Amino acid sequence: MKEYLKHDEWCIIEEGFNPENHQSSESIFSLGNGKMGHRANFEETYSGPSLQGSYVAGIYYPDKTRVGWWKNGYPEYFAKVLNSPNWIGIDVQIDGHYLDLYTCKTDNFRRTLNMKEGYLLREFTATMDDGKKIQVSAKRFVSMADTENGAIRYSVTPLNFDGKIAFTAYLDGDVENEDSNYDEKFWNIIEMEAHAGEAYLVTETKKIGFRAGFGMKIVAKIGDSELKTTPEVLKKEAWVANRIERTVKEGECFSIDKIVGVTSSLNYDKTAVLEATKKVTASGFQKGFDALLKDHIKVWADKWVLSDIHIKGDIAAQQGIRFNIFHLNQTYTGEDERLNVGPKGFTGEKYGGSTYWDTEAYCVPFFIATAPSEVTRNLLIYRYKHLDRAIENAEKLGFKNGAALYPMVTINGEECHNEWEITFEEIHRNGAIAFAIHNYIRHTNDEAYLSEYGLEVLLGISRFWSQRITFSEERQKYVMLGVTGPNEYENNINNNWYTNKMAVWCLKYTIESLAKVKAMNEARYNEIIAKTSFSYDGEVPRWEDIIDKMHFPYNEKLQVFMQQDGYMDKEQILVDQLNPAERPINQYWSWDRILRSCYIKQADTLQGIYVFEEEFDMETIKRNFEFYEPRTVHESSLSPCVHSVLAAKIGDYDKAYEMYLRTSRLDIDDYNHEAHEGLHITSMAGTWMSIVEGFGGKRVHDGELFLNPIIPKQWQEYSFRIAFMGNDMEVIVNSQEVTILSHAKNQIELKVYDQKVSVEPGQSTTIQTK
Amino acid sequence: MKEYLKHDEWCIIEEGFNPENHQSSESIFSLGNGKMGHRANFEETYSGPSLQGSYVAGIYYPDKTRVGWWKNGYPEYFAKVLNSPNWIGIDVQIDGHYLDLYTCKTDNFRRTLNMKEGYLLREFTATMDDGKKIQVSAKRFVSMADTENGAIRYSVTPLNFDGKIAFTAYLDGDVENEDSNYDEKFWNIIEMEAHAGEAYLVTETKKIGFRAGFGMKIVAKIGDSELKTTPEVLKKEAWVANRIERTVKEGECFSIDKIVGVTSSLNYDKTAVLEATKKVTASGFQKGFDALLKDHIKVWADKWVLSDIHIKGDIAAQQGIRFNIFHLNQTYTGEDERLNVGPKGFTGEKYGGSTYWDTEAYCVPFFIATAPSEVTRNLLIYRYKHLDRAIENAEKLGFKNGAALYPMVTINGEECHNEWEITFEEIHRNGAIAFAIHNYIRHTNDEAYLSEYGLEVLLGISRFWSQRITFSEERQKYVMLGVTGPNEYENNINNNWYTNKMAVWCLKYTIESLAKVKAMNEARYNEIIAKTSFSYDGEVPRWEDIIDKMHFPYNEKLQVFMQQDGYMDKEQILVDQLNPAERPINQYWSWDRILRSCYIKQADTLQGIYVFEEEFDMETIKRNFEFYEPRTVHESSLSPCVHSVLAAKIGDYDKAYEMYLRTSRLDIDDYNHEAHEGLHITSMAGTWMSIVEGFGGKRVHDGELFLNPIIPKQWQEYSFRIAFMGNDMEVIVNSQEVTILSHAKNQIELKVYDQKVSVEPGQSTTIQTK
Repeated sequence: MKEYLKHDEWCIIEEGFNPENHQSSESIFSLGNGKMGHRANFEETYSGPSLQGSYVAGIYYPDKTRVGWWKNGYPEYFAKVLNSPNWIGIDVQIDGHYLDLYTCKTDNFRRTLNMKEGYLLREFTATMDDGKKIQVSAKRFVSMADTENGAIRYSVTPLNFDGKIAFTAYLDGDVENEDSNYDEKFWNIIEMEAHAGEAYLVTETKKIGFRAGFGMKIVAKIGDSELKTTPEVLKKEAWVANRIERTVKEGECFSIDKIVGVTSSLNYDKTAVLEATKKVTASGFQKGFDALLKDHIKVWADKWVLSDIHIKGDIAAQQGIRFNIFHLNQTYTGEDERLNVGPKGFTGEKYGGSTYWDTEAYCVPFFIATAPSEVTRNLLIYRYKHLDRAIENAEKLGFKNGAALYPMVTINGEECHNEWEITFEEIHRNGAIAFAIHNYIRHTNDEAYLSEYGLEVLLGISRFWSQRITFSEERQKYVMLGVTGPNEYENNINNNWYTNKMAVWCLKYTIESLAKVKAMNEARYNEIIAKTSFSYDGEVPRWEDIIDKMHFPYNEKLQVFMQQDGYMDKEQILVDQLNPAERPINQYWSWDRILRSCYIKQADTLQGIYVFEEEFDMETIKRNFEFYEPRTVHESSLSPCVHSVLAAKIGDYDKAYEMYLRTSRLDIDDYNHEAHEGLHITSMAGTWMSIVEGFGGKRVHDGELFLNPIIPKQWQEYSFRIAFMGNDMEVIVNSQEVTILSHAKNQIELKVYDQKVSVEPGQSTTIQTK
Repeated sequence: MKEYLKHDEWCIIEEGFNPENHQSSESIFSLGNGKMGHRANFEETYSGPSLQGSYVAGIYYPDKTRVGWWKNGYPEYFAKVLNSPNWIGIDVQIDGHYLDLYTCKTDNFRRTLNMKEGYLLREFTATMDDGKKIQVSAKRFVSMADTENGAIRYSVTPLNFDGKIAFTAYLDGDVENEDSNYDEKFWNIIEMEAHAGEAYLVTETKKIGFRAGFGMKIVAKIGDSELKTTPEVLKKEAWVANRIERTVKEGECFSIDKIVGVTSSLNYDKTAVLEATKKVTASGFQKGFDALLKDHIKVWADKWVLSDIHIKGDIAAQQGIRFNIFHLNQTYTGEDERLNVGPKGFTGEKYGGSTYWDTEAYCVPFFIATAPSEVTRNLLIYRYKHLDRAIENAEKLGFKNGAALYPMVTINGEECHNEWEITFEEIHRNGAIAFAIHNYIRHTNDEAYLSEYGLEVLLGISRFWSQRITFSEERQKYVMLGVTGPNEYENNINNNWYTNKMAVWCLKYTIESLAKVKAMNEARYNEIIAKTSFSYDGEVPRWEDIIDKMHFPYNEKLQVFMQQDGYMDKEQILVDQLNPAERPINQYWSWDRILRSCYIKQADTLQGIYVFEEEFDMETIKRNFEFYEPRTVHESSLSPCVHSVLAAKIGDYDKAYEMYLRTSRLDIDDYNHEAHEGLHITSMAGTWMSIVEGFGGKRVHDGELFLNPIIPKQWQEYSFRIAFMGNDMEVIVNSQEVTILSHAKNQIELKVYDQKVSVEPGQSTTIQTK
């Protein structure tokens, strides 16, 4: 755990420059706007360890799969998020010497991520080898308003000399992915242009041929006066630049604004990318840094209105939740159903493809409550569009008749993961994808979604379960063999309780949905039946039989659900007896030892109890929580949040708070020594869940919204905003009262502590806190 | 299945050249002498598909591990058998045109592997593009007598022209491994020399720095007269040669003898390799092709006396068994305890490292009965010498206190396999290594081996089992979780019956061995106790408790041992109901589908019944055989032999014969379409077992030798020779009688059909066949 960042309500602040923290900071201070983003690499030359990362949403590279031992069914390619050309570069020379924070002396270094306004600011004093001192300020953002623009304002002020200062602003197409399987570079250069004051680069990915265009226009100033100097035009292989040099007097501020335009062939015809890039660069430049920033801040302000969580009396907790919300909003804006929420967003390369079950299980609950319903709808449509590929994927594994297995990791609908115990066996993902449809509809009442898109997906998924589940003659029960549950510290197990639970739920929900769609829109129903060659009488009876006779491991003595068959054969040594020097165990133990142990990486049975909480009484939840939590090492970022929600539910508020802090500050405090690889974007939605569903006790059942707020003793007050059935409301909780403030147009009905509460538009209601 | 080779008792014969079969033939016609060997690549240029393979025993390369997803505990390197410089090369030019069987017309092609005399002969007529016809004969061998020499006699006779014919005999160091993980070449050239009539090449492996020396001396003849022409000396990078050109008249035979010397730094000081190579090359050359061949044939004759199995009335079966025995004897001669039996011997690169559990489980029974006892002893000492590495290997996986886990694959004692379900979990290998000690001693009575070497190995292995097995509070039994049994179509299972059985046996045998060594040699006993810090009172009670309370899965209803916990939850669809178009399933089914199925790759529970047969009554064996065999797909080469032995035991002679044919002709008939990758050397010992233990019914229990011969109805007679307690005997079986012919110096006592039989030296006894 690192704790080098200052606590602040709205900002992430790093004071003093330590190269050892730089790669973590590059992740933590990342910027994005849903369409593009980048790590907090320095604009100027930096010769120390750094992971250069710049990303354009939706552009990927199918890297040839690398394996030790091939297993039938592995995909040939792993679709990777691509490190794209670097557009932030501004080299700085002081009397001919390059500014490089790895080699020069740096004082008063302060890096600030202003989350309220969405910009990155870096200020410092540098002393060059020859004793020349400069004051530097660099501010940049990726516009949320003008989503194809980014802007940088970089200024240098000599502090103890007059001298020549030069800026070389460039676009660099010579980039590579650190995780390239065969050390290949993935881009070809298609077009390069550089003129005085501007430069353009169009690149194309190898194999698929995505194009991305990068443009820049610059203006330099001394103080507030624009320089009229003509920049020197520079070109190298895959690199275009403008250089401006000027003698600057001590105390004078020499600055450059670099306005950038980024486009891609996702949004323009391939041949029009250069032209489009020029256009967006010009329009951004015309608007200028200050106006761009102003509009950018305005969009952020709107986002914060809907999604902010305010905590009084606990700055670390406040900073944590805003950090998580900020990054989620940077990563996915929900306007384009071809995009999704990558596990690292725009902050790193790790995990390649962009979509895991994280999206449905963690991100959907966040976006559904904090963003217009289209945002979630687009996330669901993304999967609908991949249905054919999911069917193909299942066929590769021997399934038939329209059974669909969604990939573990994907970017275009094709599986790209190759680790048999995950790729082929971690099939509970199919359940999360189905459940998200239900979750969306129960929050929005958008039942049309079911007939338009949802039912087809559900049919494919249910057909998969029906084939994947087999009948054990020995038990006279249905079983599901050879799976990996959410707890990836168990592989190839039989009857994972969570997966069995999800599968049976999917079958039930699909049967219900068939009836619903038939009732709602019989023409569409018949169309779907025909399209999917679905035979109700041929298929549903088996589903019903499975629902009826599924085996769920259960321990009679302990009265807890068993994560899988045989779990109690393991040595039951609790986590608190583990040697702290051997934790996290995934860094110290061999894989087989982890597998044989009883230790749980992340909520598994408890994940099922979280999802289907209404089925269980408090005692059952408690018993299971108290059994599993002490066996859980939380070595997945997706674990603490679910535990936090359940701990709050069963009244273990200290545990809930501990788990909340862990999830919310996971990356800021770098709990698992891996922030340098990128942030845990999808688990950030879990942090939000910890507060809203955990402390706030938000639930939705049978068309009703429930709240059961509690407040951690460390807090004076907290508030969050949620949408339900199109109605926005703010919930403010302190130790005395819970206030529901309506921002809705209609009367809001909900239950607080199981009491019916109505709130008129614009009004508020107050209930005593329990 | 391919069936392009002629049936013959002593030879493998390919008539007619078909490039599609060439790579399989390159494997099948391979030559070796325990110290070196090579695939049956052509001497002359061949531009068609070919796997060039030449190997020097004991020389390997630690290739950097390649994985898709790293798991803690994986080794950094995979030690590979190295493709070494090619010494067979003789390019042939006919009036300037290269002879190349891939492009010219070939008639009367006949390739013969004479197994009796151990040479490879190739004869054919080639018609060049310009119509010139030549008769070619190429004969070569790798001497069993002069083990650092190989020899080739290559002759060309123009059939319809007078013309210039040239031989370029070369040594080529520019070779690579087809399975190189990162497409690297593994050799550096250290020395190159070429003079008229001779050439030398010394190469060194990268990383480890093994050196290998290759020398050649040539002599050319017209008819029987030696040519006095001075050869042209040629040198290229990593390539040295002599070229002899001469105008040859129609009908004249122009030939070259190439005598080769091969040495390595395993046997010479690194700096002396060139000198040693020159010496062995010169001595071989002085002896000459004919004398070298004569001595070589003599050694083979001796080997055949001890190891031949003669079958009358079934040429396919006869050829099959000799093919297997021939290759086993080519691969391992037992003189050097640093060497072992690689799964592909000198016939291919696949599977890298040289030692698997195959050695102990399959090869030991063969060598122990057909070779002097030193041969097996050296195989055991090989493991003794790796004990420290096995302890280190176990430590890497979290075991302690001298627990030893032998690697799944090794060449130097270090693990080189990286597939968690195999590397970490297929731990039954430890059992086979322990059992081989017992097997050796029960055949030889060499109990000194136990105190000198065996006990230390047993202690390490038993300590491993003791730590690897855990106590299930739930069952109140000891369990072994997360293993892969011999059936690799199940991974990460609990309580594999075979592995549990082996483990408990190891513990028992170690306790017995401790007592035996203590009684035999207390000083040595105390030395071992001190060296291993062994605490009898601290360690043995737990072993005894495990022996007492180990869980063995058993199905009461079926009364069969269960391969693992939960096996009966699988859909029990028998192999004969599988779609033949989907077999072998490992080529058609995805890995998860295979894992979920009930299909067994190779004997697993039955392997245990084979090993511990004396513990079970006939009904039990039968019930288990009849349960498991119909579920077994035999997709491992190690499977049919065990089934053959057990089928014979239970009287299912048709099944025994079917399985025998399958194992013995596996490579000749290329059942699994993989002969081109190399031969299944270790399973060849299983073929021998099928006859001697299966049809012959050979067993050893409690110091006694048992025979229970039966004869397949397809055979008139068969005979084999075995050694027991230093006594050689021949067993001849036909439908009337079993003859035991003694070649021993002492009286032989054995039981035939449980009847006591004594045979005096040089005498024979006859018993009526049952």
